[in-house]
Amino acid sequence: MAAVTDAPPFERLAVIGVGLIGGSAARAAREFGLAKRIAVYDASPAAQTRLKALGFADEVADSAAAAVRGADAVIVAVPPGACGPVAKEIAPALQPGAIISDVSSVKAAVIAAMGRELPDGIHFVPAHPVAGTEESGPDAGFATLFAGRWCILTPPPGTDPDAILRMAAFWRGTGSNVEIMTPEHHDLVLAITSHVPHLIAYNIVGTAADLEQVTQSEVIKFSAGGFRDFTRIAASDPTMWRDVFLLNRDAVLEMLGRFVEDLTALQRSIRWGDGDALFQLFTRTRAIRRGIIAEGQDAPGVDFGRPHRAPEPPAKDTAAE
Amino acid sequence: MAAVTDAPPFERLAVIGVGLIGGSAARAAREFGLAKRIAVYDASPAAQTRLKALGFADEVADSAAAAVRGADAVIVAVPPGACGPVAKEIAPALQPGAIISDVSSVKAAVIAAMGRELPDGIHFVPAHPVAGTEESGPDAGFATLFAGRWCILTPPPGTDPDAILRMAAFWRGTGSNVEIMTPEHHDLVLAITSHVPHLIAYNIVGTAADLEQVTQSEVIKFSAGGFRDFTRIAASDPTMWRDVFLLNRDAVLEMLGRFVEDLTALQRSIRWGDGDALFQLFTRTRAIRRGIIAEGQDAPGVDFGRPHRAPEPPAKDTAAE
Repeated sequence: MAAVTDAPPFERLAVIGVGLIGGSAARAAREFGLAKRIAVYDASPAAQTRLKALGFADEVADSAAAAVRGADAVIVAVPPGACGPVAKEIAPALQPGAIISDVSSVKAAVIAAMGRELPDGIHFVPAHPVAGTEESGPDAGFATLFAGRWCILTPPPGTDPDAILRMAAFWRGTGSNVEIMTPEHHDLVLAITSHVPHLIAYNIVGTAADLEQVTQSEVIKFSAGGFRDFTRIAASDPTMWRDVFLLNRDAVLEMLGRFVEDLTALQRSIRWGDGDALFQLFTRTRAIRRGIIAEGQDAPGVDFGRPHRAPEPPAKDTAAE
Repeated sequence: MAAVTDAPPFERLAVIGVGLIGGSAARAAREFGLAKRIAVYDASPAAQTRLKALGFADEVADSAAAAVRGADAVIVAVPPGACGPVAKEIAPALQPGAIISDVSSVKAAVIAAMGRELPDGIHFVPAHPVAGTEESGPDAGFATLFAGRWCILTPPPGTDPDAILRMAAFWRGTGSNVEIMTPEHHDLVLAITSHVPHLIAYNIVGTAADLEQVTQSEVIKFSAGGFRDFTRIAASDPTMWRDVFLLNRDAVLEMLGRFVEDLTALQRSIRWGDGDALFQLFTRTRAIRRGIIAEGQDAPGVDFGRPHRAPEPPAKDTAAE
């Protein structure tokens, strides 16, 4: 095992694509001293301008190739469908021996798309930091996004162990825990813990928007009954999520099949008035919530710590006098 | 219209069932001066003991009938399925002219069950404060739970307008907005904004718990990808939610039918790789989120304002020396 030292894991880190995740990785690298020099590039001209103003990178490069030139570590943080094309674009500029990684929520398809573009002598250590908020763009990131969360590494067989250790050291440096698994298992785990939850959140918000019997204004007013929690995750980046569902199709369809099967049984319990079956499900689901709080993966404060302010004093009848 | 005065809406308020909602109503009544005297009763002996210790009520009565005796206002805050039996129990003790209300998330069935028990000369003004957290029991409530939320009143045709105004004044006094609608429309609106969201949250947590390919420990670790948001609402009170689904069966099955129809279309888009359909849905769902924040029905802070702490400093290699 490599000795833990105070030296930063990386000399020059290039981050390609500076949205919520890329921007948080670059800010964490700066804040926690994980790279001596940080170069960033984003394909959006507006984001490039903003990145220069934000100033958390040493260099806002004019192209992805320019950003990666001379870098010993490259993190590609673009939507999953763009990872292959970006790998192709930067391949000729990569320094021999460089470590390249991504941050995608889909691993098998992204690894195939990136892997075929990368030249020999480059260490590919795919990563997925399981963290996020509903925001996107260059302003959305923050250095502590990954603290206490998990980052999954899915290195292909035969990957240089030292490259894996350095990438793990980087993510541990952001405060993240690190776990290693196969891309295929990652894709199944994330299908149930992230992809299907997003899909059903998007779906119910769409269903509510399309009703004739209930107005959109009513849906909004009375959303505190539960609906509003779904709208938060249904406000995530549309491009990224389109790519996730297209690229993790098989695992998503498998998990969605299980969800629908269980929902059909629940629907039947409601139709036939089987209160015991409902009560039994509603009771056992509490254990998983307790586990998530015990493991520090959610805040224990009620109602997600949402503010509850005292009411305004009632308006007085000023018509008298 | 009645003039707004500083006089409390009620002289003696009885709250029967002191869980999250009943306890919050009683605390709000105390805190914001909405009743001169507050009597409470809970069928659970443990809750009774706790209520005496908490001390926010003037009186912890020994029975529901004793609590309502002499009260000009009664709020029945028990699970929906218990509302009819409680109405039957307290009916002989109700003071002529008293206003009686409930807090159920289901209106038509609860109104039928309570209405048939209530004697003439009692004003029945059913209410549903659309607010809550995932907690339950006598300690769960707090005075500001209803501030900025909506309370729906569903008075039967012919209800005394003054009784409606007084009940509305009470809920406005808690900081709530008040809207009046028919029980049938209420039940449809809540089916989509609350009941079906809870059902699919309970369902996906159950699906995740039952998988063979993914361990429960993995589901918990990687829940920050979206799943954890569902577990919060799947930690709500099982008895109340069983009753909701049994008593609002038709509206829930109707809305669930719409949800499943839309989900089937989405599943088909994934199977056939229709990225445009996915992107289009994922884009339009953002508008409803913006509406909910603009209307103050959710906090605008990212990630529900969950704390993001800086990482611990990395452990040093102490084996050397």
